[in-house]
Amino acid sequence: MSARLTPPNLQLNEQGKLKHFLTLEGLKQHHLVEILDTAESFINPHNPNDIKKVPLLRGKTIMNLFFEPSTRTRTTFEIAEKRLSADVVNLNISASATKKGESLLDTMWNLEAMQADMFVIRHAESGAAHFFAQHVAPHVHVLNAGDGQHAHPTQAMLDMFTIRKLKGDIYDLKVAIVGDILHSRVARSQIQALSLMEAREIRVIGPKTLIPPFPESLGVHVYHDMETGLDDVDVIIMLRLQNERMQGALLPSEREYFNLYGLTEKRLAYAKPDAIVMHPGPINRGVEIDSAVADGPQSVILQQVTFGIAVRMAVMSIIMSNAAQLAQSQTTDDTEERPA
Amino acid sequence: MSARLTPPNLQLNEQGKLKHFLTLEGLKQHHLVEILDTAESFINPHNPNDIKKVPLLRGKTIMNLFFEPSTRTRTTFEIAEKRLSADVVNLNISASATKKGESLLDTMWNLEAMQADMFVIRHAESGAAHFFAQHVAPHVHVLNAGDGQHAHPTQAMLDMFTIRKLKGDIYDLKVAIVGDILHSRVARSQIQALSLMEAREIRVIGPKTLIPPFPESLGVHVYHDMETGLDDVDVIIMLRLQNERMQGALLPSEREYFNLYGLTEKRLAYAKPDAIVMHPGPINRGVEIDSAVADGPQSVILQQVTFGIAVRMAVMSIIMSNAAQLAQSQTTDDTEERPA
Amino acid sequence: MSARLTPPNLQLNEQGKLKHFLTLEGLKQHHLVEILDTAESFINPHNPNDIKKVPLLRGKTIMNLFFEPSTRTRTTFEIAEKRLSADVVNLNISASATKKGESLLDTMWNLEAMQADMFVIRHAESGAAHFFAQHVAPHVHVLNAGDGQHAHPTQAMLDMFTIRKLKGDIYDLKVAIVGDILHSRVARSQIQALSLMEAREIRVIGPKTLIPPFPESLGVHVYHDMETGLDDVDVIIMLRLQNERMQGALLPSEREYFNLYGLTEKRLAYAKPDAIVMHPGPINRGVEIDSAVADGPQSVILQQVTFGIAVRMAVMSIIMSNAAQLAQSQTTDDTEERPA
Repeated sequence: MSARLTPPNLQLNEQGKLKHFLTLEGLKQHHLVEILDTAESFINPHNPNDIKKVPLLRGKTIMNLFFEPSTRTRTTFEIAEKRLSADVVNLNISASATKKGESLLDTMWNLEAMQADMFVIRHAESGAAHFFAQHVAPHVHVLNAGDGQHAHPTQAMLDMFTIRKLKGDIYDLKVAIVGDILHSRVARSQIQALSLMEAREIRVIGPKTLIPPFPESLGVHVYHDMETGLDDVDVIIMLRLQNERMQGALLPSEREYFNLYGLTEKRLAYAKPDAIVMHPGPINRGVEIDSAVADGPQSVILQQVTFGIAVRMAVMSIIMSNAAQLAQSQTTDDTEERPA
Repeated sequence: MSARLTPPNLQLNEQGKLKHFLTLEGLKQHHLVEILDTAESFINPHNPNDIKKVPLLRGKTIMNLFFEPSTRTRTTFEIAEKRLSADVVNLNISASATKKGESLLDTMWNLEAMQADMFVIRHAESGAAHFFAQHVAPHVHVLNAGDGQHAHPTQAMLDMFTIRKLKGDIYDLKVAIVGDILHSRVARSQIQALSLMEAREIRVIGPKTLIPPFPESLGVHVYHDMETGLDDVDVIIMLRLQNERMQGALLPSEREYFNLYGLTEKRLAYAKPDAIVMHPGPINRGVEIDSAVADGPQSVILQQVTFGIAVRMAVMSIIMSNAAQLAQSQTTDDTEERPA
Repeated sequence: MSARLTPPNLQLNEQGKLKHFLTLEGLKQHHLVEILDTAESFINPHNPNDIKKVPLLRGKTIMNLFFEPSTRTRTTFEIAEKRLSADVVNLNISASATKKGESLLDTMWNLEAMQADMFVIRHAESGAAHFFAQHVAPHVHVLNAGDGQHAHPTQAMLDMFTIRKLKGDIYDLKVAIVGDILHSRVARSQIQALSLMEAREIRVIGPKTLIPPFPESLGVHVYHDMETGLDDVDVIIMLRLQNERMQGALLPSEREYFNLYGLTEKRLAYAKPDAIVMHPGPINRGVEIDSAVADGPQSVILQQVTFGIAVRMAVMSIIMSNAAQLAQSQTTDDTEERPA
């Protein structure tokens, strides 16, 4: 099979299809389009806020391993899993196994032996999901629900879905991402997704201390003021200001940050009149975004949450379907190899 | 529609039917009777301790939002939801979202966007469930599982169910509620429910410091001693003594409280011979109730727990059924409004 | 019925069949064989790592009551319950009810009234599961998921299953259990299970301070050094070293323990060449077992985890099936007693 000759990509199987979902790096546009199209199929065509319940993962066991607390992401994954009719097990591992001094790898092996078909992992350290994917058994799948400052690929895909759903083709659009680009796993994954979807222009806006050192290598345009950066854009993605950055002297006070980079109605007016405003949540009202904008007509922040369920259902069902296809093809290969 | 002309009641829809379940205030007797009759249909006619599993809420997502810890109430709601075949998500919000400083309203909007069909809310502050109901989307329903000192309507309804099941029609009965009437959301809801069901006489028994200031406005008779208060009653409802009241100097010691208001076999003898003894649980043995009574033949405390599941199933299924009926009638209205 | 004349055994019903599963003490070999055979039926014959999902407990409610934290045991029970299609409720009772000062018995009665069909209990005190079984209603079943230093019968049964699956009939085998035999509920249950299965020889290996005072009454042979103890055995079961023993001066340092009783490749060579290495988990690498052995070809530690799900499914489905059979026979008896 020719796919075996391409450079190995941990998250693709021998047929070049998604096996894990760890990062957008190394994926092709068609992988993303398949996720977006599949997510679309889970949405009630008469009501975009209504997600269907389907039996696609009945009998499968999904374990949510959250080493970092997260109501929002864990709950959307849990709901997506239940809408796929999977059996769901929530594990707060930090609280229990680590207490007994078990290594991360031993924990993973044990959970795997408990009939897990898929792990959804959030971890404070970059690379945690990759580490799992490197070591799991061949029939187990890993989804990255956010690892350190590295990646948050389902968040980026729900953002792509929201943009495509509300603005049409991403190809034509100018998108600005505002805030702490340097430390944000969300921004990193968004930039990769926008690049793969060939967005017309990707801008990042933020103070110098919070912009990655070689932005040109990311294919983004850097702005340090909102007025120029937001000029004529179709999509504005506000990032959450992490409080811990404040203490590190990388940032002035919350008030000063709002004065410089907070999204107000006045600043929003620099963007296209039909520009949409996005945010991964939870929002800091009056810090990175003004309430008038967050609750205003151009805000699609809550639709992102709803679409996030459809997108996570899409990723999980595609991965399980790919595994079934691969198993099918391997059975066929075996048959063909036998002498007639 | 004439229903629109009646004074607005947050928990009723345009057809005057239950949309939320926040309090018994403002409801009519027929609302309560419908809950009791529906609950009856979930109980195995051959065994009143056996509750059926039904598919009425299949595909619906119910989120249990417990801002206050509660094993008993949360578990009965969770079991009721699973017996209705709903997808259940348990959220301990205090521990996670609030940590990130998100407002209650933002939390609610986000959970709503995650395809919640119903919120079950317990909160230490009076009015929390009303606050949710005021702000949720039209298709989302709110159940009050206890808010501050305000209301605990499903507890009151399971008490009504227990009384009707074991004593027949509530109309004929004399009911005494004993304990801290002033601070109890349970007592407040029970008095409203008993009034709506037109109980023959509602008595409250407790020390002066724990009786509401204008009891006559509640339609109750006040007693400060057990012997007179329990005389000839059909039903005795003991309230749980909250330890925190002790510290507030509103109450003497636990021992003295028991001496004055504890339900003993001797005091129980003042009631009718076939009187039943109820308690919302968890009981404080030797404080408000003697073990001989709690475990005795007249105690129906554990039956209350079982009936609580049927009653909560009833409230949830009625609300979802009302929503479906309303949607149906609105579709019909739309059709009629179109030119022929 | 003659069965009523046999000495009462809390965990057997009138027909001599499993009603609860508290300990292996007092059971017969046929009870164990039935569990092993039933567990076998849940395993995919083409892939021993794949456990089936079956509808045997649909509509039943199982409550996992963990008074002691345990990721591993709780998760395997939860998965076993979901694979049987039961409704599962997880309760961390220590955190909530006990806070309100409710007694263990009141908690149990209340949960029982909440339509529990089965309790799975882990508790730090020996006898907790027996206590529950003594007091539950006749239709409720109790499974011991580990009580103090007393018993952990499902662990012992998954060990028997693993041995039988990988080594064939237990009858022919020499089995060595290594570590803190004195304080281990796992070892106690394993010794009882191996005796009931008539293992050819049961050896225990450990320092004098950690061997029970009258080992001959248990039918075991005692060894204080690994080389002699492991000589020619078919199965080696390593126990987890509990850190708290270190502080009690019963044991030297971890390093010294490893030097004396740690299972290394060199020591493993004393056993039969095809001996298997088992461990209840979580393992302490470099304390009781060397990584080269834990991850080596003779280790079956992770298979134990998988088989544990099938074994727990077996115990739960046998108990529910026995209850249905008993109810059926009682209905028949009643019919026969009526005059023709």
